[in-house]
Amino acid sequence: MHIILLSGGSGKRLWPLSNDTRSKQFIKIFRRPEGSPPLGKDEDTGYESMVQRVYRQIRSVDPDATVMIATAKSQVSSIHNQLGDGVSVSVEPCRRDTFPAIAIATAYLHDVIKVPADEAVVVCPVDPYVEDSYFQCLQEMCRKAEKQDGLVLMGIQPTYPSEKYGYILAREDSEGHSFFEFKEKPDAETAKKYIEEGCLWNGGVFAYKLSYVLEKSRELMGTNSYYQLYGNYSKLKKISFDYAVVENEKKLSIVKYNGEWKDLGTWNTLTEAMEGSYVGDVRMNDKCENVHAINEMSVPMLVMGCKNIVVSASPEGILVSDMDQSSYIKPYVDDIKQQIRFAEKSWGRYLVLDVEKKSMTVKVILNPGHKMNYHSHERRDEIWTVISGSGHTIVDGMEQPVKPGDVVTMAAGCKHTVIAGDKGLQMIEVQLGSDISVSDKKKYEFPYK
Amino acid sequence: MHIILLSGGSGKRLWPLSNDTRSKQFIKIFRRPEGSPPLGKDEDTGYESMVQRVYRQIRSVDPDATVMIATAKSQVSSIHNQLGDGVSVSVEPCRRDTFPAIAIATAYLHDVIKVPADEAVVVCPVDPYVEDSYFQCLQEMCRKAEKQDGLVLMGIQPTYPSEKYGYILAREDSEGHSFFEFKEKPDAETAKKYIEEGCLWNGGVFAYKLSYVLEKSRELMGTNSYYQLYGNYSKLKKISFDYAVVENEKKLSIVKYNGEWKDLGTWNTLTEAMEGSYVGDVRMNDKCENVHAINEMSVPMLVMGCKNIVVSASPEGILVSDMDQSSYIKPYVDDIKQQIRFAEKSWGRYLVLDVEKKSMTVKVILNPGHKMNYHSHERRDEIWTVISGSGHTIVDGMEQPVKPGDVVTMAAGCKHTVIAGDKGLQMIEVQLGSDISVSDKKKYEFPYK
Repeated sequence: MHIILLSGGSGKRLWPLSNDTRSKQFIKIFRRPEGSPPLGKDEDTGYESMVQRVYRQIRSVDPDATVMIATAKSQVSSIHNQLGDGVSVSVEPCRRDTFPAIAIATAYLHDVIKVPADEAVVVCPVDPYVEDSYFQCLQEMCRKAEKQDGLVLMGIQPTYPSEKYGYILAREDSEGHSFFEFKEKPDAETAKKYIEEGCLWNGGVFAYKLSYVLEKSRELMGTNSYYQLYGNYSKLKKISFDYAVVENEKKLSIVKYNGEWKDLGTWNTLTEAMEGSYVGDVRMNDKCENVHAINEMSVPMLVMGCKNIVVSASPEGILVSDMDQSSYIKPYVDDIKQQIRFAEKSWGRYLVLDVEKKSMTVKVILNPGHKMNYHSHERRDEIWTVISGSGHTIVDGMEQPVKPGDVVTMAAGCKHTVIAGDKGLQMIEVQLGSDISVSDKKKYEFPYK
Repeated sequence: MHIILLSGGSGKRLWPLSNDTRSKQFIKIFRRPEGSPPLGKDEDTGYESMVQRVYRQIRSVDPDATVMIATAKSQVSSIHNQLGDGVSVSVEPCRRDTFPAIAIATAYLHDVIKVPADEAVVVCPVDPYVEDSYFQCLQEMCRKAEKQDGLVLMGIQPTYPSEKYGYILAREDSEGHSFFEFKEKPDAETAKKYIEEGCLWNGGVFAYKLSYVLEKSRELMGTNSYYQLYGNYSKLKKISFDYAVVENEKKLSIVKYNGEWKDLGTWNTLTEAMEGSYVGDVRMNDKCENVHAINEMSVPMLVMGCKNIVVSASPEGILVSDMDQSSYIKPYVDDIKQQIRFAEKSWGRYLVLDVEKKSMTVKVILNPGHKMNYHSHERRDEIWTVISGSGHTIVDGMEQPVKPGDVVTMAAGCKHTVIAGDKGLQMIEVQLGSDISVSDKKKYEFPYK
């Protein structure tokens, strides 16, 4: 099976664990099943993220699947850290909704990975919380798509009259031809009626032969070349695959999925899927009922006698919310203006420890053998103090080995990088300047191979 | 009026805002009244601590009062930071209960501050949450003590049948002489009966002529000399002033206080006394009811739709507790083993930013013109990076000026100190070693005046 996983944008509904750079699918909150090895390059905590869970499920159903992730540039480091370097990633130069995203990912499969145009691919979101049988259903969709023209959709058997999903109804016209009706997110009463009529949820999952989407791309965007799509991406119209393709397609068929399917987009849905009641350094007394606590800070958390709440702490902030109210945090989080306090990078991760008017102190953790870009800053000096591991630095072309206790100072304008040894490297970086910003960064070619 | 404020030990009932070095009386949680100037040397936040509130109240009732604080060594820095250098402090070399503490404080007043033995002093806890009339009552107790021998006690009009306080009953013997009965903390039913009989709460407040306690000290401990008491302090018997003195005294009189009086020793009582519902960077939605949040961390806190809880965060940890349950946190907090994460020092304060196996990163904030002790560590190297302000360092006798961006490295064994300039100085200190401990510190005489 070829599979494209759509890895969506950064969300704030799971703040403070998701932020402008970490999307919800990268939060490690699910206990990894015993016996299954950890994925990716991160330190093993015994927990896995949504994207790791889905990837592991795909591999267990089809060890030979070609998995490709379509995502924004900002997620590439997280994907490689969590899934390893073996996974293919098609980078969207900017956000343009699902039709351009699926078109460019399909073109990437064809033009870069060289998948023949008559082979089928299935596209699905990166973060459904589902049983393994969901992925068997994807296989069936692929098989079906290979044998026919047009599109194969997944219809999910509704378990309650949800107002959050679109519905699909299979009907017949007066001449006995079957067709599908697509229904927008309804109110609860209408949803109930839909379910009685036999409607299914639209799972946002599509299978097709590559040629099908390549043809649609040419038709609707004037090209199906990966390189042309990439170059013109910012000018493509923002339109969803549903509007652009699905709802205009006559040759549709549906494969039904009748298993667990959850969208873990808010704290109350996410915590329902947690196995234990907490992750991290959390203590609770026995008077707590339905409390879920996730502590990503390095200080202890104590919860006493609370009911139906979620508590979540990260270097970004602290959330304490009633379960039901947790769906409404977005405007409050949008109102919080601050620098990003932690991020995954291709070389490891960083964590902001202290912010002052003219300084910022950051803990930098490089994975074994990894290195930063060779770069400089225009408006800040930096001072590195190595606290563990070893490696070497290059500063304005000068290389030197570093070990714990070594200090490296870099004035503004100075080119620098650090390369971790085989046990990784941690350091404290003090940034000094009156205008410290993540965007103040100029990259250079690495000074040697 | 002469007044001795007893400043009690570190408590964990208000964790994470109190810890092994910060007692509850130093938590800044009360909004300072408009127009009253900030006390002490700390940055002004508009809030005051219990000790600052009491000190301000004393000054407003009696601007000329001699205020002396009897406390442990560990609190001296906090007291001077919060009240300034003008306040007298009598240091107990170790903890020995209230009789030795009152005896040495009284001896200090007499021998060091040279208060005549026939003048009266009133002793009271440093942290009652009371109206100004409480301090007028202290004045009245002093006036009374000056005119008579023996002890003057404060009796507080009970407002409910508390099980937490001792009770006092004034009675008459068969010959018509009045005497007092002291009753231990009763159960609620007994307390109710006591109140019906006219009992008052024992407020732990005593007034006497200095000569009275000096005489008791000589009698019960063999000396009343401040220097002898100080030198032998660890050998003195642990006994409370109530047991050693009050309950054996015939010459007692009582001054009644009939106003607000609260012991803010647990989160539920403390939060009742808060004016607003939060302190620090806290956002709440309008579905919150009876939520109190105190955030001493540098990241935002969001509380949504919670009821009857206290949320409190500091570099020590995060507490989320039902109000009633908050009285029971002590055993859970005792179970948390970690290095102290923040502390007030004579020169300013420090804050632990990061802890690794062989390193600790600390933010050091020196107040203007202040300096650390000249000291060394046996088992760790240290590296300072100045992030704001200016000053100069002395390392193994070598002095040099420092400004933001300067780095100073000190190997284990090396003597060092830093002296802040007139705008203070902040720096990031990286400690490196396999056995980092606050007790690894050797102090030296300052290398010059």
